[in-house]
Amino acid sequence: MIVDLTDAQLRRALPTKWGSTEEGTVPAWVAETDYQVALPILDAVGAAVADGMLGYAPWHDTLQAAELDAAFVAFAQRHWGWTLPVGRSTVVGDVVAGLRLVLETLAEPGPVLVPTPHYPPFREVVEVTGHELVMVEADPDADDAALDLAALERAIVESGARTLILCHPHNPTGRVHRRHELEALRDLTRAHGVRVVVDEIHAPLVLPGSPAFVPYLSVDDSAVLVTSHSKTFSTAGLHAAQVITLDDGDLAAVRGVPHAQNGGASVLGMIAGTVAWNDCDDWLEALRERIAEQRDLLEKMLDERLPQARVRPVEATYLAWVDLRAYGVERPAEAARAHHVRVAEGSDYHPGLAGHVRVNLATDARRLGLVVEGLAAGVLR
Amino acid sequence: MIVDLTDAQLRRALPTKWGSTEEGTVPAWVAETDYQVALPILDAVGAAVADGMLGYAPWHDTLQAAELDAAFVAFAQRHWGWTLPVGRSTVVGDVVAGLRLVLETLAEPGPVLVPTPHYPPFREVVEVTGHELVMVEADPDADDAALDLAALERAIVESGARTLILCHPHNPTGRVHRRHELEALRDLTRAHGVRVVVDEIHAPLVLPGSPAFVPYLSVDDSAVLVTSHSKTFSTAGLHAAQVITLDDGDLAAVRGVPHAQNGGASVLGMIAGTVAWNDCDDWLEALRERIAEQRDLLEKMLDERLPQARVRPVEATYLAWVDLRAYGVERPAEAARAHHVRVAEGSDYHPGLAGHVRVNLATDARRLGLVVEGLAAGVLR
Repeated sequence: MIVDLTDAQLRRALPTKWGSTEEGTVPAWVAETDYQVALPILDAVGAAVADGMLGYAPWHDTLQAAELDAAFVAFAQRHWGWTLPVGRSTVVGDVVAGLRLVLETLAEPGPVLVPTPHYPPFREVVEVTGHELVMVEADPDADDAALDLAALERAIVESGARTLILCHPHNPTGRVHRRHELEALRDLTRAHGVRVVVDEIHAPLVLPGSPAFVPYLSVDDSAVLVTSHSKTFSTAGLHAAQVITLDDGDLAAVRGVPHAQNGGASVLGMIAGTVAWNDCDDWLEALRERIAEQRDLLEKMLDERLPQARVRPVEATYLAWVDLRAYGVERPAEAARAHHVRVAEGSDYHPGLAGHVRVNLATDARRLGLVVEGLAAGVLR
Repeated sequence: MIVDLTDAQLRRALPTKWGSTEEGTVPAWVAETDYQVALPILDAVGAAVADGMLGYAPWHDTLQAAELDAAFVAFAQRHWGWTLPVGRSTVVGDVVAGLRLVLETLAEPGPVLVPTPHYPPFREVVEVTGHELVMVEADPDADDAALDLAALERAIVESGARTLILCHPHNPTGRVHRRHELEALRDLTRAHGVRVVVDEIHAPLVLPGSPAFVPYLSVDDSAVLVTSHSKTFSTAGLHAAQVITLDDGDLAAVRGVPHAQNGGASVLGMIAGTVAWNDCDDWLEALRERIAEQRDLLEKMLDERLPQARVRPVEATYLAWVDLRAYGVERPAEAARAHHVRVAEGSDYHPGLAGHVRVNLATDARRLGLVVEGLAAGVLR
């Protein structure tokens, strides 16, 4: 059910991940999969193109936005048992655009906390919106990648932060935050008047056997959710994501901006999202099983070729956060690229942290083997 | 060659213009045509979807961005005799996103002049980027819709403006600014240290028999151009536009922003644009002829049904700026909507101006007749 694409197909299909990587190098950096998009999505988007649905996206409540909203509500109920009321979402172009909009419209003045490592656009969007950025750095030697609540509390008190950007499940560590951790985060942030803005784009990618995903809004109704089908279903280029808030004032504020401030969504993206949330459960199940296989294979190959590499369990996402400090190479991604493998440098996610890479494992066994070989060639002396 | 779509087809194809308008009402508001998208574009985008090109748009110089750039350069040479060097464009999601990016990265602090009437997102984007908005209002009784250079100069001197947003050809008046006017604007703005940012999205829509289109950058190399194929070729929802600057420092500044500040373009949009600029000249010629027919028909019908309506010659665009003040109705678009016609209220384009509407005439004879009847029913007592 999951169809692997060939190198030639991928070079055309994915102009960023593959097309901007030199030929002969295996790209395992940008978070896109090397699999075919689910056929119901390709069919629906293809039909929409044939019908000429290339015009302006509706910027008020209209059919396509309402359908996307309802489809996500149904998905959340089926998959997570979360009863989200309909009509709480606002369509934006992508998660980063949604974060920007939320920071511009809902965030109080004051610093924004970003637990680190983090997806690099988090810090960019904080800076672009004129907030002070406060990174709360995880200890790379900690047993797991749980949130360090004590460190967060210290940073809130010291900085006077009013907003925290949470990534759940976490990119790049692959951690699924537990319910009790989320509840503790809620209590902590409420006590200090901090609003949580949560990116849950990886939520459908919690792997078989991992702890259950708990939507953060289901434990903290004052938070704001930004999410999209685009990561799981590989439709980032179609530009549709959802900002979801349970507060009527927040909803009015987010929707009240002019088109110049929220004009990035597309009709094709809304159609893709509606089909993804509604009609792709079987495909998604197959994807999760396939990713779990790739994860297990990566762990096995690392054990063999780079036994001092450390990877905490990848509970969700198709990204592995690999600690290679034992090999003493400052920039292992750069070292691997000389050996025809492109992974993401850890310091992009945790500024100043040496010896880490983020590996995109959503590919086939052959390419993943090449990735491990390239990493090994880069860091073994 | 220009294929008219049925009401049912349009209701599906255009969720904003048609889909958000109540059934039974003729929509002539949003600037989208009621014609089929050119087949080479539908074919290319359809093939790209089938190949799964739904991923991240390349945010560096890559194949698709370079192809779009080269295609526009060739189009500008063929159609306007303008020799634009290759490699001067940066892809953005749409013209408004491009204006926002330019105001954020290139505009000096200080007020921004917006000749008025104007496309409403111009004033929104000025406000969103934190600049003071200075509207320079045209005299609705002037003989033509030429720029009032004396009024612009007074406003520059009084406000200390550092930036001017020019729309050329002009939405909503349909005017093609003449070469001598553009040269005078260049001299005036240079003398006062004002940078011109020009939106030329309607440039391919200069109608047969109108004055030739002169690209503003061809007379003022310090200006910044924001343009797109999306208006002429009806692909706004695919999100691709170009910011073009001839200055290396400007180019580096526009390209140097993080993804969080310019992440709105799509690969499908770049492909559509490349095909539009390269392979659709015949279709474009047919479109211009068809629009000219619609324009002539509108003038004739207005003469018959609303003889006191005043429309200056529509030299470009498929939009008519209709002065209905003689009929004494403050908000004629609102009045027409009660009679099942939706046109754009003039005060959206010229705040405070009564009795004007913007009519989208890119439809068929039957619907255009209904539009005129609805307007007449709304304003005749």
